Amino acid sequence: MEVTEIRARELNAEKFINEQIQKISETVGKSSAINALSGGVDSSVVTLLGHKALGKRLTTYFIDTGLMRHGEPHSVVSLFDKLGVPVILIDAQKEFFNALKGIVDPEKKREAITQTFYKKVFGRLVQKSDAAFLLQGTNLTDIEETVAGIKRQHNVFEQLGIDPKKTFGYKIIEPLIQLRKDGVRKTAKALGLPKSIYQRIPFPGPALAARVIGEVTPRRINVVRKATAITEEALKGTKAFQYLAILHRDRVTGVKNGKRVFGLQIEIRCWDSIDARIATPTKLSNETLFRLAERITAEIPEVVSVTYNITTKPPSTIEAI
Amino acid sequence: MEVTEIRARELNAEKFINEQIQKISETVGKSSAINALSGGVDSSVVTLLGHKALGKRLTTYFIDTGLMRHGEPHSVVSLFDKLGVPVILIDAQKEFFNALKGIVDPEKKREAITQTFYKKVFGRLVQKSDAAFLLQGTNLTDIEETVAGIKRQHNVFEQLGIDPKKTFGYKIIEPLIQLRKDGVRKTAKALGLPKSIYQRIPFPGPALAARVIGEVTPRRINVVRKATAITEEALKGTKAFQYLAILHRDRVTGVKNGKRVFGLQIEIRCWDSIDARIATPTKLSNETLFRLAERITAEIPEVVSVTYNITTKPPSTIEAI
Repeated sequence: MEVTEIRARELNAEKFINEQIQKISETVGKSSAINALSGGVDSSVVTLLGHKALGKRLTTYFIDTGLMRHGEPHSVVSLFDKLGVPVILIDAQKEFFNALKGIVDPEKKREAITQTFYKKVFGRLVQKSDAAFLLQGTNLTDIEETVAGIKRQHNVFEQLGIDPKKTFGYKIIEPLIQLRKDGVRKTAKALGLPKSIYQRIPFPGPALAARVIGEVTPRRINVVRKATAITEEALKGTKAFQYLAILHRDRVTGVKNGKRVFGLQIEIRCWDSIDARIATPTKLSNETLFRLAERITAEIPEVVSVTYNITTKPPSTIEAI
Repeated sequence: MEVTEIRARELNAEKFINEQIQKISETVGKSSAINALSGGVDSSVVTLLGHKALGKRLTTYFIDTGLMRHGEPHSVVSLFDKLGVPVILIDAQKEFFNALKGIVDPEKKREAITQTFYKKVFGRLVQKSDAAFLLQGTNLTDIEETVAGIKRQHNVFEQLGIDPKKTFGYKIIEPLIQLRKDGVRKTAKALGLPKSIYQRIPFPGPALAARVIGEVTPRRINVVRKATAITEEALKGTKAFQYLAILHRDRVTGVKNGKRVFGLQIEIRCWDSIDARIATPTKLSNETLFRLAERITAEIPEVVSVTYNITTKPPSTIEAI
């Protein structure tokens, strides 16, 4: 499949929205569609496009994987409720943590999440609903990086030559495939989505599992969830493209209550970028960084060390795994 | 044993030097002594004090553990040669790497180095030489942190209630036990040691093995040796107390030659401190940090990510393991 890029500055968002709504209508026809909303700008735009095209023939689920940020499942569902879009919240935390038990390899972790998400939890919902179409928020950068082997996305089967019809039993519609992140944000704004959505920092598909090096357990997710909340609060005032906290598997020496301990380390990344293809670390002041480390080590007793990423992408990537 | 601290600002270095030389002379008597020189300020001062007290009755060894920095063994030996102090260079690289094979636990790594250093390599030299006394550069901070359980030093057997006479077959003399690092530096200067010694940044006993999280292999030491050389060159202009590069065990995603790889991560730490008891990260400019990361990832192909420590000690420690 050939994809023609639409650059954000050339994007006529109103025209694009109308075209996509019409396209979704035509493709789905009298059938129905289903989609999963994560609260990110991509899936939020797709949800609203689908809702406008299909109304009640779109069923939108928010799957609580247990890997979301603090308070996220309920805040996303209630936001869409206010927009008149019904979203069904599914608690699948146990299923995800069971699937992730003992897995250390990042590829296998992503695979476990993909399989649990699509084949198990979402697959069950699709089969139950008789929907033949799945709306997905895949954008152009996702595809390029998957094809180039830089990123392993779980939502771009088609681009990898996998037939999603055979694999998971439904057809995928990807309305955002010609846009990059900045184009998606412009579309979100034109759709009337709130600032908290169209200016929301990117967040990875595997959610906080992508922020944990090594095994993903409820306890380790809880540590990185706290670090994420502190980091997002501290850095929301920056104009950074993305900021994140990563829990390392390596333990480092620290001192707590005057005693030597092997504690946890959190790595902070804060990126300046237009579209995630290339990125540079944000020039934060020493004061901002030191205060952030102080809060994290004070509020999360297991953490004794905090670092700040100083490498560009490339050779780094935005996320650590 | 009660130890009375001598603060650097109250230290009369000439008087201290004369007292220590006399004390070593009296303690060793007609016997002979042996010591190991690492090139750090502590062992350098002890070597010179011992040389002044005992002359040819002191035998000084530099043991090349394979864990030293780039070019270090030869530069230290030739520096002392110029000062008229003969130092014997012992190549024990294979013995150390064999002892470290497969060990991941930091305590067991230190133990393997201690055992190889004292029981095997240095123990053999002591027994061959018939020396009854060992000169050691232990300072007051080492003792306090060992007693408090913050640091595990391999040169303070006495303070831990271990009888070194029974354990390794010799008596230990510790001339610097009343001083902290600043006092030792003042003494080094008064002794006429060059600036490269008395202003040298601290370097841990287990050398680069303390800078490798996970298994210590010749290959991993080589990576951290290169990163250390780049870091020391880049940060020598700062007035920092200590700066170091740590090779992590965790692998992180990176992009090299347009392909996704799981690469190595280096953590940089740069400390402002008086005596290592408490420390804060040095306020380096973003430009300095980003350039350093760029050099490390460019010159060491396996490395895709570099971070900078932003945590104070406590709750961090100076070194990572």
